[in-house]
Amino acid sequence: MFALGLGVATLNGDNQILEVFYPAPLVGEKAEALNGLLADQTLQPGESRRLSQEDLQSLAENAGADLQAPARTMLRADADRKTAVLVLIDTDQKPASTEDVYLRLHLLSHRLAKPHQQNLEGMFGMLPNVAWTSEGAIDLQELTHRQLEARIAGRVLRVHSIDKFPPMTDYVVPAGVRIADTARVRLGAYVGEGTTVMHEGFINFNAGTEGTSMIEGRISAGVMVGEGSDLGGGCSTMGTLSGGGNIVISVGKNSLIGANAGIGIPLGDDCKVEAGLYLTAGTRVAVLDENGAVVENTKARELAGKPGLLFRRNSENGRVEVLTNKSAIQLNEMLHAHN
Amino acid sequence: MFALGLGVATLNGDNQILEVFYPAPLVGEKAEALNGLLADQTLQPGESRRLSQEDLQSLAENAGADLQAPARTMLRADADRKTAVLVLIDTDQKPASTEDVYLRLHLLSHRLAKPHQQNLEGMFGMLPNVAWTSEGAIDLQELTHRQLEARIAGRVLRVHSIDKFPPMTDYVVPAGVRIADTARVRLGAYVGEGTTVMHEGFINFNAGTEGTSMIEGRISAGVMVGEGSDLGGGCSTMGTLSGGGNIVISVGKNSLIGANAGIGIPLGDDCKVEAGLYLTAGTRVAVLDENGAVVENTKARELAGKPGLLFRRNSENGRVEVLTNKSAIQLNEMLHAHN
Amino acid sequence: MFALGLGVATLNGDNQILEVFYPAPLVGEKAEALNGLLADQTLQPGESRRLSQEDLQSLAENAGADLQAPARTMLRADADRKTAVLVLIDTDQKPASTEDVYLRLHLLSHRLAKPHQQNLEGMFGMLPNVAWTSEGAIDLQELTHRQLEARIAGRVLRVHSIDKFPPMTDYVVPAGVRIADTARVRLGAYVGEGTTVMHEGFINFNAGTEGTSMIEGRISAGVMVGEGSDLGGGCSTMGTLSGGGNIVISVGKNSLIGANAGIGIPLGDDCKVEAGLYLTAGTRVAVLDENGAVVENTKARELAGKPGLLFRRNSENGRVEVLTNKSAIQLNEMLHAHN
Repeated sequence: MFALGLGVATLNGDNQILEVFYPAPLVGEKAEALNGLLADQTLQPGESRRLSQEDLQSLAENAGADLQAPARTMLRADADRKTAVLVLIDTDQKPASTEDVYLRLHLLSHRLAKPHQQNLEGMFGMLPNVAWTSEGAIDLQELTHRQLEARIAGRVLRVHSIDKFPPMTDYVVPAGVRIADTARVRLGAYVGEGTTVMHEGFINFNAGTEGTSMIEGRISAGVMVGEGSDLGGGCSTMGTLSGGGNIVISVGKNSLIGANAGIGIPLGDDCKVEAGLYLTAGTRVAVLDENGAVVENTKARELAGKPGLLFRRNSENGRVEVLTNKSAIQLNEMLHAHN
Repeated sequence: MFALGLGVATLNGDNQILEVFYPAPLVGEKAEALNGLLADQTLQPGESRRLSQEDLQSLAENAGADLQAPARTMLRADADRKTAVLVLIDTDQKPASTEDVYLRLHLLSHRLAKPHQQNLEGMFGMLPNVAWTSEGAIDLQELTHRQLEARIAGRVLRVHSIDKFPPMTDYVVPAGVRIADTARVRLGAYVGEGTTVMHEGFINFNAGTEGTSMIEGRISAGVMVGEGSDLGGGCSTMGTLSGGGNIVISVGKNSLIGANAGIGIPLGDDCKVEAGLYLTAGTRVAVLDENGAVVENTKARELAGKPGLLFRRNSENGRVEVLTNKSAIQLNEMLHAHN
Repeated sequence: MFALGLGVATLNGDNQILEVFYPAPLVGEKAEALNGLLADQTLQPGESRRLSQEDLQSLAENAGADLQAPARTMLRADADRKTAVLVLIDTDQKPASTEDVYLRLHLLSHRLAKPHQQNLEGMFGMLPNVAWTSEGAIDLQELTHRQLEARIAGRVLRVHSIDKFPPMTDYVVPAGVRIADTARVRLGAYVGEGTTVMHEGFINFNAGTEGTSMIEGRISAGVMVGEGSDLGGGCSTMGTLSGGGNIVISVGKNSLIGANAGIGIPLGDDCKVEAGLYLTAGTRVAVLDENGAVVENTKARELAGKPGLLFRRNSENGRVEVLTNKSAIQLNEMLHAHN
């Protein structure tokens, strides 16, 4: 997929880009159609250009409705260490620059690309570690000086985070969401319409929710939560970056992970994990039929993605069990269907 | 109970109220006595009025000490999109407006009303979803434009949350508290004198602590924690909004919920829940007497509100147990007293 | 150890110090050598002095490179309620003042002193409880007035925390770290080079990491985490202030505490605690040899600091076990070596 971004970038003292804000990124045909509007240059995928006042003037006059308004606004800019940038990318190719990665993160949070749809290989190396402060993005080398200067002037230079990713809502606020503590949703999160992220909720980049969800637990990088599913307070989903290995964790539709619980397997539709139970891929689970009889003992990873399961730890004997409303025959079919 | 608030409200572009700050709300006789101070209008419960400069002048001259000072200060206001409002409510009746709900939330955080004492029916529908930013409350429809304008001017418009509730401490800081991360205590929390809310603590609206408490876990909507009780790091209390159903969860006096533990039942006085144990209402529990012998097996909900219990999961056999220092006879009396 | 700090302090309306920012604290010989630079006074350990413009002029001219630059910058200061202070301390003696405690906290976060190396007795009593706001440190007595004034002027006075400790990164950002939510790392944390503190991570004062670590859990006061060790999301370490009693909890090298797990004992090198398992000092643990046979049942506290252990809860029978790759003879030696 092609994408085009017209953005405002913050520069450090060496004129390197620290971050880019794209108010209205474009994808597909729109992106391709608008490439070439600059008088003297058509961008190749992966290319970017820092715009002169003439470039902006040209866009403000000739570009369509999608770019004209921001171009006009940018013409008025006179802030230090800011530049307008135009970047064209092919999301199937690897990112090529900081401004390229920022455009991909914007596409996710604008719901123009879903998690796992873009090539993000090598993106970490292209994201500078930045101090996100009350006075904007600041290069770490310049921070101590700026902090002392602010003190002397009677101001406070508040440092909100030292990170490669800024909070999403300083860049994109998608429609139909509530986010109680924006410090906990990174740019690059895909937050579905109808999602509430409570104070204990968290969403990493390239991860998120399909639609209506109450998120009070942690959605790790790469994890997608289906329509109608809820994550209880403090619950955990294992990320591919940290312990989940090669398995991509996900949660199906209309499922629930209880408070302080956790999953190390992809969960199917209409499933529940009891509050406080951490289900790793290697957890041994007793599979119970509709009458509560044990049909089989298996590992949790064998139940990945199966629908209609209720996981709990039996409080009389400590055994991890999965309750179903299926007969022994149905369970055998389910468990061995793909073996 | 009657209550009267003189506040400063923020308006959106359509002159709708986004939020109200009441520096000194009044209740009971004081509220009734001050109603009628405006030359031409006595407010009925549920009514509110946006004040003109003449109204404020009148209050500044004629109202008692409680209202004169804020009225005088408000006379100096000349900020855009601000208005002074006066509202009278009867807390036994349902809320009637945004300014009404904000007054009820202030009463809770000013410790003028306890959780569950006010009628809050339908309040969610009267609270607009607002962007809480470094430049104040902003209507979500106006946010993207404001963010681009700020960037162009070299400022950062930091969005702290997208929520129906603002953080309490931007409105009320009750005496004798410490709150390590104010983003985690909503306006409408009742925070008792002597309470410390650590970084992992959280208090929702219409919920809180009676007095001295160390809160490192989550107090859900509707939950009240008794004097001298502590919530360990990351522990959970089930809220009536999310899984607790009709049972109102609470914690008695001098009790402790361990780190990463949780409760789905009201806990009595002098109780402990071991770190890491999640006790749901349906958890089966073996009741042990003073000698460690099992007297009975029951569900946790049968132990709701009973004093002097220590809940743990036996680490040798995985059984959830409750330890007491009572004899078998005393335990039988306790368990079957109200059946 | 001697330490010397030249700082900028914020005062309340009674000229009491609320907090101090030391841009470049000095220790050891450097600190001793620079003491006595003021024309008329040599500081005794524990003494501090609010500097006049003449004092600053003298330092700007005569002090070495370490103090000249900040002294020159402070000469330019004209902010209300700010003062320059110079303080000399002996870290083996008890703290003597607010400015003294702030210097000790800076030493920790600048990695000039390790946790437990300084005498911190009585420090809590010397730290005022402060409102940390978007307009700097404010005395709690003055906050309500300031909040109303800000509203009237159309500004928001954001209160970030009400606490005795400010966030570290508003004072010190040590090299080679990432901190996703700075509200969760207190001044006085020791954050090793190569440490990433994710959104769910937390580090209290007098606690931290030796070097490379991924911290997604909570490091309580007094807890130190060794090189190469990771704390999973939401995991807990018991602090000496809250339930850990006299045992100082720590984590050795190359160890891992799983998500939502917790420890109440010091963990040795190359250990793992399974996700979701809370290991208190009193947890009974079955010790398994290389063949999975139970060699002994013991309490977790007996395993404190031992290397190469994997703790888990058996999901078939609820028993807490520790897996090793040692023979029964080796295990007996390990368990009874120091008895």
